[in-house]
Amino acid sequence: MNSKQLFENIKNKKSFLCVGLDSDYKKIPQHLKEKDDPVFEFNKAIVDATAPYTVAYKPNLAFYESLGPNGLIALEKSLKYIRNNHPDLFVIADAKRGDIGNTSALYARAFFEKMDFDAVTVAPYMGEDSVSPFLGYDDKWVILLALTSNKGADDFQYHTEENEKLFEKVLKTSQQWGSSDNMMYVVGATRAEMLADIRKIVPEHFLLVPGVGAQGGSLAAVAEHGMNDQCGLLVNSSRGIIFASAEEDFADKAGEKAQALQKEMQGLLEKANLI
Amino acid sequence: MNSKQLFENIKNKKSFLCVGLDSDYKKIPQHLKEKDDPVFEFNKAIVDATAPYTVAYKPNLAFYESLGPNGLIALEKSLKYIRNNHPDLFVIADAKRGDIGNTSALYARAFFEKMDFDAVTVAPYMGEDSVSPFLGYDDKWVILLALTSNKGADDFQYHTEENEKLFEKVLKTSQQWGSSDNMMYVVGATRAEMLADIRKIVPEHFLLVPGVGAQGGSLAAVAEHGMNDQCGLLVNSSRGIIFASAEEDFADKAGEKAQALQKEMQGLLEKANLI
Repeated sequence: MNSKQLFENIKNKKSFLCVGLDSDYKKIPQHLKEKDDPVFEFNKAIVDATAPYTVAYKPNLAFYESLGPNGLIALEKSLKYIRNNHPDLFVIADAKRGDIGNTSALYARAFFEKMDFDAVTVAPYMGEDSVSPFLGYDDKWVILLALTSNKGADDFQYHTEENEKLFEKVLKTSQQWGSSDNMMYVVGATRAEMLADIRKIVPEHFLLVPGVGAQGGSLAAVAEHGMNDQCGLLVNSSRGIIFASAEEDFADKAGEKAQALQKEMQGLLEKANLI
Repeated sequence: MNSKQLFENIKNKKSFLCVGLDSDYKKIPQHLKEKDDPVFEFNKAIVDATAPYTVAYKPNLAFYESLGPNGLIALEKSLKYIRNNHPDLFVIADAKRGDIGNTSALYARAFFEKMDFDAVTVAPYMGEDSVSPFLGYDDKWVILLALTSNKGADDFQYHTEENEKLFEKVLKTSQQWGSSDNMMYVVGATRAEMLADIRKIVPEHFLLVPGVGAQGGSLAAVAEHGMNDQCGLLVNSSRGIIFASAEEDFADKAGEKAQALQKEMQGLLEKANLI
C-alpha cells in the first residue's frame, strides 16, 4: 500500500485509527481459552468488530513470541484473516527490530516475504545499514522509532549535540534513506507538545502515534499538532479497545470503543477540511 | 550463570570464544536439507564439533524467524540440545529487543521462561523501562548494545553532548539499572581502538565483542584493549566458523576454525596471567 491509498482509506473510513493487537494470552476472555487457538479466535473477533472503524492493525510481536511457535502460528493466521476478509487494511508488525545489514535483511524477509505485513517498526540505534534492508520492497514500509511514548524515552532520545536532539537527528538523517512513501516515524502521543516541532522536520511523512488511551495521550492534541494535509497520522490504541471487556461481550465492547474513537477522529478530520 | 562461573568456564576451556549460530538456511550444506529439521541438525553438529573450544553460543533470532514457526522450533530444540549435552555453556539470544515496559516484560518471558536462554541482547534507544524487565531474573543477563560493529554505528552512536558520546551515555546511565552480574555490553571488534576508553567507563562488566572474522576485527587488539582481570570478554565469531565449509565436512572444519581461535585465545589469556 502506498501513502495515497492509505489517505484514501482514511477518507473512506473517516478514521485514522490503528488497533494494537497486543493480545496478551493472560487477558483473553476465559471462554475463548477452551478453543484450539484462543489468540487467533480473539483477534478474529476483535478484527470483525473493529474493522469498520479502523484503517490499520498493529500486532506487537512480544505478545506472540511469549507463547513460543504456537504464538507465531496465531499471528500468521490473524494476518491472513485480515488480508482475506478486510483487504484494505494496513497491517504493521510492531517488532522494533534492527541488526547489522545481512541480519536485518533476514528480518525483512521474515516480515515481508514469509509473512505479508505492510510495515515493520525498526529501532534506529544501529544506523542506516540496519534499516535500509527493510526499504527494498515495493509498497512496504519502515516505521522508525523517533520519540517513544514511554518514560525511558528521556534517557537517550533527548541527548543533544549542537541543539540537535537525538530523535531530531534520527528524523533528519533517516530521510536520506527512504521517502515519505516507504518510511513513517513513531512519535508517542504522550509527547504531543513536540509534534509541532517534529512536523517542521518531517512535514510529509506519516507518523504512527501510540500512547492514546492507557498511556494517557490526548487525541485532540495529537491532531492539532501532528496532522498534515494528507492526515499524516495513524493513532494507535491497544488495551483501551481490545480489553474493554473480559467477558463474552468483549468484541462488542471493543467495537464500541473503536467507534467512539472513530467518531472523534471524524470530527478532527472535518475540522481540518480533509473530509 | 553468574560472572564467577563464567570466568571459571573461561579458565577451564582456556577460551573466551562465543560461536554465533547464525544458521542461515540458504547456506546449510545440501545433504542436511533432506533431514526433517535441517537447521537443528546443522546446529547439533556444529555444537558437538565446537563445544570443546567455546564457552558460549549466540543464535541470532533473525535466522530463525525468517523460517516462520518452524524456525522457532529449530531454535528451541537447539537450545535444549546444548542444555542437555553441554550444560556449562552460556547461551545468548541475539534478539536486540526493547519495547515499553509491559511489552519488554513479555519478551523477557519469551527468552527466559518459555525458552531458557542465559542472556538476551537488548537495544537501548527506549531507555530504562525497556531494559529493566529483563533484569528481574536470577542468573540471567541483559547484553545492551553500546558500540556496534557495523558501518551504521557512526550515524547515531557518536552523537555527542558535552563531550559524552551517545554510546558512552548508554554505558554510564545503564550501570544504574543493573550490575556487572546481570549486564554486559556489545562492543564491536571493528572498534577495538575504543575498547580502552570503554574499559574506563565499565571496568568490571563483561563485553560481548562481535566482528572478529568476516567483519574484519582483530582478536589480539580486542584482548589488548578490552581484557580485564576476570577476562571480561566474550568474543563472537559466526560465519567464519559455522560456514567454514559447505560440504559434508562442515562440522570438522568448524571445529578446526574454533580450535584455532581457542589456541589464539589461550595465548592471550596466558599473556595476561589469567591461566
